[in-house]
Amino acid sequence: MESSVSPKTPKDSLVVMTELVLPNDTNTFGNLMGGRLMYWMDIAAALASMKHCGSPVVTASVDNISFENPIRLGNVVHIEAKVSRAFHTSMEVHISVWSEDTLQHFRYRSNEAYYTFVAIDPNGKPKPVPPLQPETEEEKRLYEGALRRRQLRLILGGKM
Amino acid sequence: MESSVSPKTPKDSLVVMTELVLPNDTNTFGNLMGGRLMYWMDIAAALASMKHCGSPVVTASVDNISFENPIRLGNVVHIEAKVSRAFHTSMEVHISVWSEDTLQHFRYRSNEAYYTFVAIDPNGKPKPVPPLQPETEEEKRLYEGALRRRQLRLILGGKM
Amino acid sequence: MESSVSPKTPKDSLVVMTELVLPNDTNTFGNLMGGRLMYWMDIAAALASMKHCGSPVVTASVDNISFENPIRLGNVVHIEAKVSRAFHTSMEVHISVWSEDTLQHFRYRSNEAYYTFVAIDPNGKPKPVPPLQPETEEEKRLYEGALRRRQLRLILGGKM
Amino acid sequence: MESSVSPKTPKDSLVVMTELVLPNDTNTFGNLMGGRLMYWMDIAAALASMKHCGSPVVTASVDNISFENPIRLGNVVHIEAKVSRAFHTSMEVHISVWSEDTLQHFRYRSNEAYYTFVAIDPNGKPKPVPPLQPETEEEKRLYEGALRRRQLRLILGGKM
Amino acid sequence: MESSVSPKTPKDSLVVMTELVLPNDTNTFGNLMGGRLMYWMDIAAALASMKHCGSPVVTASVDNISFENPIRLGNVVHIEAKVSRAFHTSMEVHISVWSEDTLQHFRYRSNEAYYTFVAIDPNGKPKPVPPLQPETEEEKRLYEGALRRRQLRLILGGKM
Amino acid sequence: MESSVSPKTPKDSLVVMTELVLPNDTNTFGNLMGGRLMYWMDIAAALASMKHCGSPVVTASVDNISFENPIRLGNVVHIEAKVSRAFHTSMEVHISVWSEDTLQHFRYRSNEAYYTFVAIDPNGKPKPVPPLQPETEEEKRLYEGALRRRQLRLILGGKM
Ligand SMILES: CC(C)(COP(=O)(O)OP(=O)(O)OC[C@H]1O[C@@H](n2cnc3c(N)ncnc32)[C@H](O)[C@@H]1OP(=O)(O)O)[C@@H](O)C(=O)NCCC(=O)NCCS
Ligand SMILES: CC(C)(COP(=O)(O)OP(=O)(O)OC[C@H]1O[C@@H](n2cnc3c(N)ncnc32)[C@H](O)[C@@H]1OP(=O)(O)O)[C@@H](O)C(=O)NCCC(=O)NCCS
Ligand SMILES: CC(C)(COP(=O)(O)OP(=O)(O)OC[C@H]1O[C@@H](n2cnc3c(N)ncnc32)[C@H](O)[C@@H]1OP(=O)(O)O)[C@@H](O)C(=O)NCCC(=O)NCCS
Ligand SMILES: CC(C)(COP(=O)(O)OP(=O)(O)OC[C@H]1O[C@@H](n2cnc3c(N)ncnc32)[C@H](O)[C@@H]1OP(=O)(O)O)[C@@H](O)C(=O)NCCC(=O)NCCS
Repeated sequence: MESSVSPKTPKDSLVVMTELVLPNDTNTFGNLMGGRLMYWMDIAAALASMKHCGSPVVTASVDNISFENPIRLGNVVHIEAKVSRAFHTSMEVHISVWSEDTLQHFRYRSNEAYYTFVAIDPNGKPKPVPPLQPETEEEKRLYEGALRRRQLRLILGGKM
Repeated sequence: MESSVSPKTPKDSLVVMTELVLPNDTNTFGNLMGGRLMYWMDIAAALASMKHCGSPVVTASVDNISFENPIRLGNVVHIEAKVSRAFHTSMEVHISVWSEDTLQHFRYRSNEAYYTFVAIDPNGKPKPVPPLQPETEEEKRLYEGALRRRQLRLILGGKM
Repeated sequence: MESSVSPKTPKDSLVVMTELVLPNDTNTFGNLMGGRLMYWMDIAAALASMKHCGSPVVTASVDNISFENPIRLGNVVHIEAKVSRAFHTSMEVHISVWSEDTLQHFRYRSNEAYYTFVAIDPNGKPKPVPPLQPETEEEKRLYEGALRRRQLRLILGGKM
Repeated sequence: MESSVSPKTPKDSLVVMTELVLPNDTNTFGNLMGGRLMYWMDIAAALASMKHCGSPVVTASVDNISFENPIRLGNVVHIEAKVSRAFHTSMEVHISVWSEDTLQHFRYRSNEAYYTFVAIDPNGKPKPVPPLQPETEEEKRLYEGALRRRQLRLILGGKM
Repeated sequence: MESSVSPKTPKDSLVVMTELVLPNDTNTFGNLMGGRLMYWMDIAAALASMKHCGSPVVTASVDNISFENPIRLGNVVHIEAKVSRAFHTSMEVHISVWSEDTLQHFRYRSNEAYYTFVAIDPNGKPKPVPPLQPETEEEKRLYEGALRRRQLRLILGGKM
Repeated sequence: MESSVSPKTPKDSLVVMTELVLPNDTNTFGNLMGGRLMYWMDIAAALASMKHCGSPVVTASVDNISFENPIRLGNVVHIEAKVSRAFHTSMEVHISVWSEDTLQHFRYRSNEAYYTFVAIDPNGKPKPVPPLQPETEEEKRLYEGALRRRQLRLILGGKM
C-alpha cells in the first residue's frame, strides 16, 4: 500500500522555527492571536512534510487544537514539526509549541497539534510519499497513535 | 448556569469578511496557504464572539478543519462567522468559508469550522457571557449539535 | 452606448468587508491612518466592480473623500461596496464605511466615497461592461446622481 | 485668522519618498493597486504636514485623484509632498507622484493630489498651525489655487 | 578594465527614501530594530545601483555598520543612497541615514554604510557596469576611499 | 572586567530559525533580497543575546557580510545564532545561514556573520552581561577570534 522508495525517519523531516511576537501579531490586549500561531504552525508543518516527500504539498486537515496558555507581546515562540506517519499520499505532521519569556528565563508549553498534508504531482493530483520509519520511543508512540487519529479525522471530515 | 443578562441572537454576532488572495498569502504554486485562511477565520470568529459578549476574548480551541478545495491567487475568500452556542464563559462560533473566482463568476465551498472563545475580564480571568437564542432552523440545528461537539473537544483537549 | 449583455443589479456586485484595526494600521496616537482605510476601500470596490463585469479592472479615479470620525486601534471597520452606475467601459462604485467599538456596542459612520474602475481586456485595453439596473429607491438615487458626479470628476481630472 | 507664530516655507515641509513596487502591492495582473499608492501618499503628506506644524495630525479629506498611467511590479514610485497652504487649524498638502522603470531609464508622471490634514492638540481637538509663506512661482500658484479648492472640498464634504 | 559606455555621475543614481517607524518595526521597547533599518537601506541602495547600471542587481556584500543612536516609534527615517564607485561588474553604494522627531523638530544622524551590488545579465551572470565620474569634493573623497574599502572587504570576505 | 554572575555557555543562547521565502521577500527576479535576510538574522541574533543576558538589547554593530549564493523564492532559510563572546556590556553573536531547496533535497551555505548587541537597563543605559564559557572546539575558536574582530569593529566604528 505504501510507495517502494526507501523509508525516511522523523528526524529527516524535523523543522525548528523561532518567531518573535511583534505588535501586529497581537490583539489589543497584547496577547498573540491564535490565528497567527496556526499560520506559523502551518508553515513549519508544510516544510516538514515537503522535506519528507520532496514534492509540493497542500494542507488537507488540521486536528482539534487547544490553546493552554496565552503568549505575550515580545515573547518568543518555538515550533518543532516532524512527520509522525506517512500513509499513501498523505502525511501526518506532529507539531509542538513552547513559548519563552527571554527576559524572565521562563519557558512554558503552549500546545501541540497534528496537521495532515497531501503530496501533489505537477498536475495537482495526490502522489505517493515515502514510508516513515520511527526511531525513538516517542516517535513510535506517535506512529502507533496515528491510525486512530486518521480514522477520527476522516470521519469528522466526512470522508469515512 | 448561564448569565442572567438578556439573551442575544446569532444574527447579533454575524461577521462577514471578504479577503482578496494576494501573492504573499500563497505558496509557490499559487494556492492560498491553509494557515493564512485559519488566521482570517480566527479574526472573523473573534469579532463575532466579541459582538456577542462585549468583552475581550481569547481563542480556547479550534475543532478539526478539513480543506476541501484549493483557493487560487487572485480569488476572493468569503467568511461568515456567528456564535452558534454560548456556554458559561465560553462561546462556540460557527464559520463558513466560500471562495469565488470573480472573473469566471464561479463560487465554491471551501470549508466550515468551529472555534471556541472565552470572554476575559480585566484581570484576565474567564467571565460569564450572555445566553444565545437561536432563531432559524439552521441556527437551532447548530445550537443542538454544540453540546456534543463541546464534549468531544473537552475530551480531546484533556479537560474531561 | 452600453454593451448589449443582460444588465446586472447593484446587489449582484455587493461586497461586504470587515477589518480589525491592528497596531501597524495606526499612527502613534492609536488612530487608523486615512491611507490604510483608502487601501481597504480600494480592494472592496475593485472586487465589487470585478463581480459586475467579470474582467480585471484598474482604479481610474477616486472622488473627494472626507473623514468624519477617527477610528481607534482595536475597533472594527465595516465596508460595503456596490456598483452604482455602469457607463461604457467604466463603473462607478459606491462605498460606505462604518466603524464599531465591539466592546462598547457602539457603531458610528466613518465616511462614504465613490471610486471609478475601468474594465480591462487581455491586451490591457478598456472593454465594455454590462449595464446596471438599479432596484431599490436608494440605488436609483445613487444611479441618478452618477451622471453629475461623472461630469465633475472628468472636469477635475482635466478630461473635459 | 492665522496663528501668530513665524511663518514657514513649503520647502520646510518637503518630504521625498521612494518605494519599490513589491508583489503584494500589485493585483494579479502585476499592476500597483490604487489603494496602495493612496496609502503611501497619505504617509508622505502626513509627514509633510507634521513638519509644518510640529503636532500630530489627522487626515481630514482627500481631493479627487485620477490615475493616469499604470505602474508595474518592480518599478519605483517617487512621491514628493509639501504644504501648499495653511489655514487656521488645517493644512493643504500638494503631492506629486512619478514612476520609474529603472531598467529602461524611463520616468513618467503618475498623478498629483491634494490631501488636507488638521493639527491635533493633546485632547484630540484641532489646534492652530503656523502660516505658510510660498517662495517660488510654482508655490505661489499652488497657494493661490488653494482657496478655491478649499471651498469645493468643504462643499463636497457637506461643511459649507 | 571598465566598460566603454559613457560615464555617469553619483547624482544620476541618487535615491532619497523616507520611512515612518510603525509599531511592527520596533522591538518591545519602542525602538526601531537594526534589521528593519538594514532592510530599508538595502532597498534604497539596490535602487541607486539599478539607476546607475540599468540592470537587475544582487547584494554582494555589506560593510561593517555601527548604529550610533536609537530611533523611536513614530520617528521618521531619511535614507540617501548614491553610487560612490563603479568597478568592473560591481558598484559600491554609499548610504547615509538620519532620523527625525517631527514633533520636536529634532534631526540627528543615525549611521552611514557601504553596500556592494553586482549587475546581473539575463542568464544570471555578472555584467560590466558604466564607470562613475564623481563631481563634488565629497563625491571625490568617497571615490578615492573606495579602493581601500574594496580591498578590506575582499580580504574579510575571504576573496583575497 | 566581566560581571560576577555565573557564566553561560554558547548552547544556552542557541536560537534556530527557519523561514520560507515568500513572494514579498524577493526582488522581481525571484531572489531573496539581502536586506530581508539581514532583518531575519538581526531577530535571531537579538533573541540569542537576550537569552544570554536576560535583558533587552540593541544592535550596536554588524560586521562585514558577504552573500555567497542567491536564495530562490520558495526555498527555506535556516539561521543558527549563538553568543560567541561576552564583553562588559556587549555580546558578539555568531550567525550561520544555510538555504535549502526542499524539493531537490539540496542544502547549501549562504553566509555567516557577526552582530554585536549591547544589554540595556531600564533607563536605556548599557548594563553588564554574564561571561561566556565556550565548550566545543568550534566555540573556543570563535571565542578566541572575537577579540581581534572587536578591535577591527571598534576601529571601523570610530570608537578606537
Ligand atoms: C482558555 C482559557 C482562558 C481557559 O482557562 P481555564 O483556566 O481552563 O478556565 P476554566 O477551566 O475556568 O474554563 C473556562 C472556560 O473555557 C472552556 N475551555 C477550557 N479549555 C477549553 C478547550 N480546550 N476547548 C474549549 N473550551 C475550553 C471551559 O469549558 C470553560 O467554559 P465554560 O465556562 O463555558 O464552561 C486558558 O486556557 C487560556 O488562557 N488559554 C490561552 C488562550 C490564548 O491565548 N489563545 C491564543 C494562543 S496563541
Ligand atoms: C487534500 C486533497 C488533495 C484531497 O483530494 P481528494 O480528491 O480527496 O483525494 P483522495 O480521496 O485521493 O485523497 C488523497 C489523500 O488525502 C487524504 N485526505 C482527504 N481528505 C482528508 C482530510 N479531511 N483529512 C485528512 N486526510 C484527508 C486521503 O485520506 C488520502 O490520503 P492517503 O492517500 O494517504 O490515503 C483535496 O481535498 C484538496 O485539494 N484540498 C484543498 C487543499 C488546500 O488547498 N488547502 C489549503 C486551503 S486554504
Ligand atoms: C478632521 C476633524 C478633526 C475636523 O473636526 P471638526 O469637528 O469638523 O472641526 P472644525 O469644524 O473645528 O474644523 C477644523 C478644521 O478642519 C477642517 N475640515 C473639516 N472637515 C473638512 C473636510 N472634509 N475637508 C477639509 N477640511 C475639513 C475645517 O475647515 C477646519 O479647518 P480650519 O481650522 O483651517 O478652518 C474631524 O472631522 C475628524 O477627527 N475626522 C477624522 C480624521 C481621521 O481620523 N482621519 C482618518 C480616518 S481613517
Ligand atoms: C550601542 C550603544 C548603546 C552604545 O552606547 P555608547 O554610549 O557608545 O556606550 P559605551 O561607550 O558605554 O559602550 C557600550 C558598549 O557598546 C560597545 N560598542 C559601542 N559602539 C560599538 C560598535 N560600533 N560596535 C561594537 N560595539 C560597540 C562598546 O564597546 C561597549 O561594549 P563593552 O561594554 O562590552 O566594552 C549606542 O550607540 C546606541 O544606542 N546605539 C543605537 C542602537 C540601536 O538602536 N540600534 C538599532 C538602530 S536602527
